[in-house]
Amino acid sequence: MNADAKKAVLRMIPYGIYVLTADDAKGNVAAATVNWVTQSAFAPPLVVVGVKADSGTYKTVKAAQSFALNMLGKEQKNLAFTFFRPADVSDGNISGQSFRKGETGAPILVDVPGAIECRVTSIVEQGDHHIVVGEVVEAHLNKPLAGRPDAAILEMKDLGDNVFYGG
Amino acid sequence: MNADAKKAVLRMIPYGIYVLTADDAKGNVAAATVNWVTQSAFAPPLVVVGVKADSGTYKTVKAAQSFALNMLGKEQKNLAFTFFRPADVSDGNISGQSFRKGETGAPILVDVPGAIECRVTSIVEQGDHHIVVGEVVEAHLNKPLAGRPDAAILEMKDLGDNVFYGG
Repeated sequence: MNADAKKAVLRMIPYGIYVLTADDAKGNVAAATVNWVTQSAFAPPLVVVGVKADSGTYKTVKAAQSFALNMLGKEQKNLAFTFFRPADVSDGNISGQSFRKGETGAPILVDVPGAIECRVTSIVEQGDHHIVVGEVVEAHLNKPLAGRPDAAILEMKDLGDNVFYGG
Repeated sequence: MNADAKKAVLRMIPYGIYVLTADDAKGNVAAATVNWVTQSAFAPPLVVVGVKADSGTYKTVKAAQSFALNMLGKEQKNLAFTFFRPADVSDGNISGQSFRKGETGAPILVDVPGAIECRVTSIVEQGDHHIVVGEVVEAHLNKPLAGRPDAAILEMKDLGDNVFYGG
């Protein structure tokens, strides 16, 4: 396989930017920027997230058996970088961000335009990131969207000319 | 769950547009437009595709245990609509498009900027679309890319103000 072609073609896949959160109700709260996300079914509504298998976030999602995907808004580049770093819960905030507990217990960031909450239905343990499948059980529209929903989300290409996670 | 919020928030996920192809070597050739795609691991390189479970394409991918994702270029809106319709293989073309057989036997469209070929490693049979996991075994860069790879791909939002597949 041509490694350069593989990298270039895989990087053609466009990505939104999300903060994946979870709370295992045993004191572990996760909040991390992710981008490997797609819907995978309408009925029931399923989403798939690729999560780094050796990360604390993965451990917490697996223990919680639930998670939220917080959709970052077009202007929230700073939040993407904030949650590239390990999350710090203090003074009722996560890494300085206000949140409330969702239905599943997962933190819902107050300042993002929207979020979905999911119950984990299966995990495919293949590769350095595992495939977490979740059924959408709750949705939050925190701020009204103008125009197409997919024009409102922060995208990988908004983070910088040479920022990629994929390939 | 608020159904309107669920739809709006799920539609925030941005999507590229791909022609999913497969050949089961028993006379069945599939070629269909899809958008539920994400990478899910670096090592090995894995991708996930949500494929309608009652479709001929799904049947062919499952029988072939391999598939290709042909990345449509920014200006190939017509091809997205061509492959929304059932594929027609005749005169050595698929629905009028030239192709060559890839490593896996899957058709690689000659006119797209790039394609990846995958061996199916697992299928999660949940929902009205199933989750097909594939390991990337070959990549084709058919045309040089200028700038970011993810700026070169046709996106869902390029298909029209009210075109969505998700929510």
